[in-house]
Amino acid sequence: MFFKFLPKEFDFFNIFAQHADHAVDGALLLKEIALKGDINESDISKMQEIEHLGDNSAHTIIEYLNKTFITPFDREDIFSLAKELDDIIDMTNTIIRRIYVYKIKGVNPNFVEFALVIEKSVNAVAIAVKGLKNIKDTKTITKACVEINRLENVGDSMRDKILSDLFENQKDPITLIKLKEIYQDAETILDICEDVAHVVESILVKQA
Amino acid sequence: MFFKFLPKEFDFFNIFAQHADHAVDGALLLKEIALKGDINESDISKMQEIEHLGDNSAHTIIEYLNKTFITPFDREDIFSLAKELDDIIDMTNTIIRRIYVYKIKGVNPNFVEFALVIEKSVNAVAIAVKGLKNIKDTKTITKACVEINRLENVGDSMRDKILSDLFENQKDPITLIKLKEIYQDAETILDICEDVAHVVESILVKQA
Amino acid sequence: MFFKFLPKEFDFFNIFAQHADHAVDGALLLKEIALKGDINESDISKMQEIEHLGDNSAHTIIEYLNKTFITPFDREDIFSLAKELDDIIDMTNTIIRRIYVYKIKGVNPNFVEFALVIEKSVNAVAIAVKGLKNIKDTKTITKACVEINRLENVGDSMRDKILSDLFENQKDPITLIKLKEIYQDAETILDICEDVAHVVESILVKQA
Repeated sequence: MFFKFLPKEFDFFNIFAQHADHAVDGALLLKEIALKGDINESDISKMQEIEHLGDNSAHTIIEYLNKTFITPFDREDIFSLAKELDDIIDMTNTIIRRIYVYKIKGVNPNFVEFALVIEKSVNAVAIAVKGLKNIKDTKTITKACVEINRLENVGDSMRDKILSDLFENQKDPITLIKLKEIYQDAETILDICEDVAHVVESILVKQA
Repeated sequence: MFFKFLPKEFDFFNIFAQHADHAVDGALLLKEIALKGDINESDISKMQEIEHLGDNSAHTIIEYLNKTFITPFDREDIFSLAKELDDIIDMTNTIIRRIYVYKIKGVNPNFVEFALVIEKSVNAVAIAVKGLKNIKDTKTITKACVEINRLENVGDSMRDKILSDLFENQKDPITLIKLKEIYQDAETILDICEDVAHVVESILVKQA
Repeated sequence: MFFKFLPKEFDFFNIFAQHADHAVDGALLLKEIALKGDINESDISKMQEIEHLGDNSAHTIIEYLNKTFITPFDREDIFSLAKELDDIIDMTNTIIRRIYVYKIKGVNPNFVEFALVIEKSVNAVAIAVKGLKNIKDTKTITKACVEINRLENVGDSMRDKILSDLFENQKDPITLIKLKEIYQDAETILDICEDVAHVVESILVKQA
């Protein structure tokens, strides 16, 4: 199913760049949905398409790992990066499906703010991952990783503040259940981005 | 605790077949509980026994990995398969314990349907895993993997539909909390089955 | 960010001992909060400091793994141990933040009991991990692992009993949501401790 023939000249960095771009596409879609305060069938299909493309990238990378003896980085780092990019896309998909299934409507400033932080963090992930092609340019990569770590802390505080407000003010438990889950998932995306930053930093150290 | 002496002639495929059979036993028990719409102490004991047997299989496989230099597949694939079969059994146990602890009674057609899909998927997992013994018979293995992937999609839609209905119609938040958790766990079993299919497909590719 | 120069003479066992001590510090703080039935900004800062120190230990261990060819145990076991000690600390932090964010006040005997079991289990984890330095003293290590496994079972039953009572008697769904999450997290710490015990037991088997 998932495994296709490898391209003759396997451009490892190119596939990783594509994988990261799919994660960015997911984050952009999430932002769009947050900003319009509405979601429809076509958003769901768009996200499914992104997830499908992300799966293809991940499987191409894993297949490459299985068939190649020499890799530009440690095999476990390649595996971790592919897995974590996949996790970012899956979690974005989970949030978007929940918004749809829970029929959440209306522009929510808290959620818009969260979606903007996620967009920034996933963009920084793409910069860090693409930066591996020119690994001697440690400045660009490190700057992106610092930004990802910063945004994870921002997200932590945002989630805590939002949940604190929710539990204080949201008297309808069913609405509370829906929103609590979505904000926790949103913060999880930032955690996964931080995991990517850790792997990238560890690759930098090894190649130093 | 967990580590016993290895049998003189270690039949790797046999232990994996047993491990998969324990997962099937768990799925059958879950179906039984769904169909009778009731659960008692003896179901809990039965599940604990299955989990214990599953643990033994997993530990035997890991011990084999630790003590053997040559393995029929890549070590990380063997490790992943054992871990994922274990995860299927653990999640089945979690669901059954929740039904008991949450005192959920009565036959619920949605849950029966889910339990039947889980049974099919775990059966296909057993076919795929046992198929590795005759790895040249790729047709049987691939057919089982395709079925597992199909059932994961079926489960995704079922869960979304059921949760959508629940949030629309279940006005008691405490009942909603219980059922939501159980359906999300039920779908997780299908996700883990899909992970098994991915590992099995990857073994096929490497041995092709 | 995370990676510092390795000390000239890398004392692997010493760093693991420190890492385990940070986990113990977290468990002690959790017990303190449970016993006073109150939480304040200074508890949150204290936990953040512990988490930060734990992160440093984890990163030092991973960096050591990356730069060293010969390790006292299998690389994957070292990696697993560092990851699981980190997970214990992260989950302790999660619980403490939830208590703060959810504004949970008052001494709760159930929660005190749980915190005491967690303290015992994390103490046994520290004994097991530190025991690896004198790996021939299998008695001490095995005793700690048996205790960790026992406490995981104790925790399972406690969580089931507490949740069963909660769902029976707690009529406010919002309070139920808060407490349910905290008890499930509390039991998760005991699960992670059990994972540590499994890794330690597997190291014993390999070195036997």
